[in-house]
Amino acid sequence: MIGAQALIRTLTNCGVDVCFSNPGTSEMHFVAALDGVPEMRGVLCLFEGAATGAADGYGRMTGRPAAALLHLGPGLANGLANLHNARRARTPVLVVVGDHATYHRQFDSPLESDIDALAGWVSAWFQRPAPSAGLAEAAATAVAAAMTPPGGVATLILPADVSWSDGAQPSGPLLVPARAPVPDEAVGSAVAALRSGEPCMILLGGEGMRRPGLEAASRIAEAAGARMLGETFPSRHERGAGLPAVDQLAYLPEFAVQQLAGVRHLILAGARAPAAFFAYPGQPSWLVPEGCQVHLLAGEADDVCGALTALADLAAPDAKPRPQQPGRPALPDGELTAQSAAAVIGALLPEGAIVSDEANTSGLWLPGATAGAPPHDWLTLTGGAIGQGLPLATGAAVASPGRSVLALEADGSAMYTISALWTHAREALDITTVIFSNRSYALLGIELGRAGAAAAGQAARSLLELSRPSLSFTALAEGMGVPASRASTAPEFAGQLRRALAEPGPYLIEAVVPPLG
Amino acid sequence: MIGAQALIRTLTNCGVDVCFSNPGTSEMHFVAALDGVPEMRGVLCLFEGAATGAADGYGRMTGRPAAALLHLGPGLANGLANLHNARRARTPVLVVVGDHATYHRQFDSPLESDIDALAGWVSAWFQRPAPSAGLAEAAATAVAAAMTPPGGVATLILPADVSWSDGAQPSGPLLVPARAPVPDEAVGSAVAALRSGEPCMILLGGEGMRRPGLEAASRIAEAAGARMLGETFPSRHERGAGLPAVDQLAYLPEFAVQQLAGVRHLILAGARAPAAFFAYPGQPSWLVPEGCQVHLLAGEADDVCGALTALADLAAPDAKPRPQQPGRPALPDGELTAQSAAAVIGALLPEGAIVSDEANTSGLWLPGATAGAPPHDWLTLTGGAIGQGLPLATGAAVASPGRSVLALEADGSAMYTISALWTHAREALDITTVIFSNRSYALLGIELGRAGAAAAGQAARSLLELSRPSLSFTALAEGMGVPASRASTAPEFAGQLRRALAEPGPYLIEAVVPPLG
Repeated sequence: MIGAQALIRTLTNCGVDVCFSNPGTSEMHFVAALDGVPEMRGVLCLFEGAATGAADGYGRMTGRPAAALLHLGPGLANGLANLHNARRARTPVLVVVGDHATYHRQFDSPLESDIDALAGWVSAWFQRPAPSAGLAEAAATAVAAAMTPPGGVATLILPADVSWSDGAQPSGPLLVPARAPVPDEAVGSAVAALRSGEPCMILLGGEGMRRPGLEAASRIAEAAGARMLGETFPSRHERGAGLPAVDQLAYLPEFAVQQLAGVRHLILAGARAPAAFFAYPGQPSWLVPEGCQVHLLAGEADDVCGALTALADLAAPDAKPRPQQPGRPALPDGELTAQSAAAVIGALLPEGAIVSDEANTSGLWLPGATAGAPPHDWLTLTGGAIGQGLPLATGAAVASPGRSVLALEADGSAMYTISALWTHAREALDITTVIFSNRSYALLGIELGRAGAAAAGQAARSLLELSRPSLSFTALAEGMGVPASRASTAPEFAGQLRRALAEPGPYLIEAVVPPLG
Repeated sequence: MIGAQALIRTLTNCGVDVCFSNPGTSEMHFVAALDGVPEMRGVLCLFEGAATGAADGYGRMTGRPAAALLHLGPGLANGLANLHNARRARTPVLVVVGDHATYHRQFDSPLESDIDALAGWVSAWFQRPAPSAGLAEAAATAVAAAMTPPGGVATLILPADVSWSDGAQPSGPLLVPARAPVPDEAVGSAVAALRSGEPCMILLGGEGMRRPGLEAASRIAEAAGARMLGETFPSRHERGAGLPAVDQLAYLPEFAVQQLAGVRHLILAGARAPAAFFAYPGQPSWLVPEGCQVHLLAGEADDVCGALTALADLAAPDAKPRPQQPGRPALPDGELTAQSAAAVIGALLPEGAIVSDEANTSGLWLPGATAGAPPHDWLTLTGGAIGQGLPLATGAAVASPGRSVLALEADGSAMYTISALWTHAREALDITTVIFSNRSYALLGIELGRAGAAAAGQAARSLLELSRPSLSFTALAEGMGVPASRASTAPEFAGQLRRALAEPGPYLIEAVVPPLG
């Protein structure tokens, strides 16, 4: 068989059976080979960032990589921003980048570029298999590399002649190492901190934001007096009624400083020591309070939940986790605002929903409004590269048939990868998209003032406004085959959201809200 | 003044007075400083690729760089594909990438990445000024680097604290070197080839596709018997009635081989030696015929037009260039196809129009149909990274008030950077966009067969189809404030195009055509 056939068969052998695709000429043998391996599902995306973001969403929900098929250096370039988010999320993702035939690169034809430089920017592992052999082995290694804890982006560069040459054979899966067990000393140091009588905080991240980690941390909080706090942008946060609730580290450093004030022992469980998202004149970047001791209980590649459980068994052997009580906000009346929209979402969020949250400033009230909703998963913008939300929803929906996916999107962010809506329609994915349309880069309006640039005039302000003309997201959605409606009052929004969640397939609601601040 | 103020003032001092912007928090001081320098025009783009492609279009039309303001590594990543096209076009472009404050990078906060690796991928020059001083000098150096022949991408990485720190002073422009004069030996070698009596071909590229180069080459062709041929994807081709017409090197190698068959002397004037765009099994990558001698008359940084004129003065001292005679196709009747649409465009193209051509397979008949139209500029997809056409039109229109811009777009390519339409509307740019809507990646359908993958089945074919659902470009345009209509017959298309060209401001026509082949 040719290289492409052996590659695809190797991928399915290794458990990779979805390929989010935006191919070009150099990938045509890969595309042609898909028909020979019906276990591989090809999902067409109209832009590479929509493909890589989908692979991120898929990997967050399954723990297994999907493939993203991209076209040469420029195709990889277009996919990088959402791969950056996947890198920060520690999501297993397999990128397959087609390249020119090995003998063709010397001619520096128009699409030639240094693919390795781009692959190195974002990948935990990358390789360019040689023409003669090794493609299938490299593919199996790539899958294992993507899944090696804590998970990451593995990039396989596929020269066209390696893809089309005959004589290849598929490989089987390689052993993936388990998360590293945490040494007794790390647990012991945390136990000592908890027993010191001084204020302790457990900062949870990564795997620690899933049920076993939250329950162990909650036991410790109940019995040993430590506070628990979640990282600002978790990859996947299991939350809702019946799970322990956890506040999260604030995005703005002045609020984070307040949350951490007085803490003498900070126990890191899958989270990194807190630092500000951005630097600001006169604000700290490093958020660990002075005199606070940092205890690394479990790093992101470690067995975070095992370490938390071991710590709970020692420090709080008889404690039970405190579950969040069920409770939903009442459906609000009156005008639609970010706050009333959050109440509507809290009132209607279905059990088992997956929320892809890129609501940015419009999302301020969402955590509170949804805290007591039935159990659900919350996926956040891990790397700060906007344009994640709609593609992430694609991948989460492909990964999780039978579950409702709710994409909560800021208008500015939505425009980066708006073509993801077409894939929602083509694959008939059960995704309800809510666009918080405040006609501005509202976050930047706030940041402009915070940055000390308060005297900004009209030239500056105009670069933060999404008006003149206003975007019509209902028209954009209909242009890509997604039915849509616009809501301007809270009851309109509630009615539309209820119907959208009840029906299969994609739907978009343009929620017209005023900007914050 | 603060760094950002000194930077913007330096840029306007150096002739950079347009900034295509997609800023974030780390660029807020730059944005705020815009109001202090009214000579600088900020143009908001909703995606970085729309900003970088606009800077490319602007630079192609003015020969001066516009700035593209981007946000950290992921912002630069999103802009890379169109910067790759600009690199291949040898367009002067100045990229300003905001970065974290210098002291903040150590915390590896979510948006941190290796910006230098991305800048290096595409830039002829890049630098990260130090905090204490040197920002204005670096900016002046960057502008000069972008304009140094043959032109290229210069990237200035702007740490937030360098931007907000006080005590900076603006700089003035640096001297930009001229194109290198061509040595007598290069001209002599070409003269000898022309006088050899053996078949000669002049391959034109870069500056050679502008009027002075075409006229000199035409004189040589008239008097010295050489054929002239243009490169496949010129940055800016001046053409139409009154200018010498030139065929262009074919995209597919089997046709290019026919064009070059029998040539014994290939004289390169701003073009590179011909190589295939892609490799194919059983097809050559290197297209220079066996036994053909290659004469480098002028490289891309050289004085191409001067060298051609010197050659013409020696080899064809009395010859005149042969101008293309005026002539337009008749307005066709009947169904709309790529061919009849080309005839409509040829019949209606206004004098001085600027065509941004990303029509791909639907563009096959355009060169013939527009050859005798009034003089116009034709901008092509220089680097093969699709998603160029709509942003390029933005920049060309900003650069050239009073001229009609016609963006000819394939449906698949249009979706990569579709948000550029919003900027067309916001800036009231006189751009008529024609989407050739054939509901497929038609080029890939052809390539799938050519790649030897003829036995492809439904799984493969489905990854090349833009149907299920069909895209409505009229809805997409209206969603972004651009008036639009759909044409299904040639007379409908003619009527809509005539009106769109006559009216100021943007308009979009969805030209529904069958796919080729």
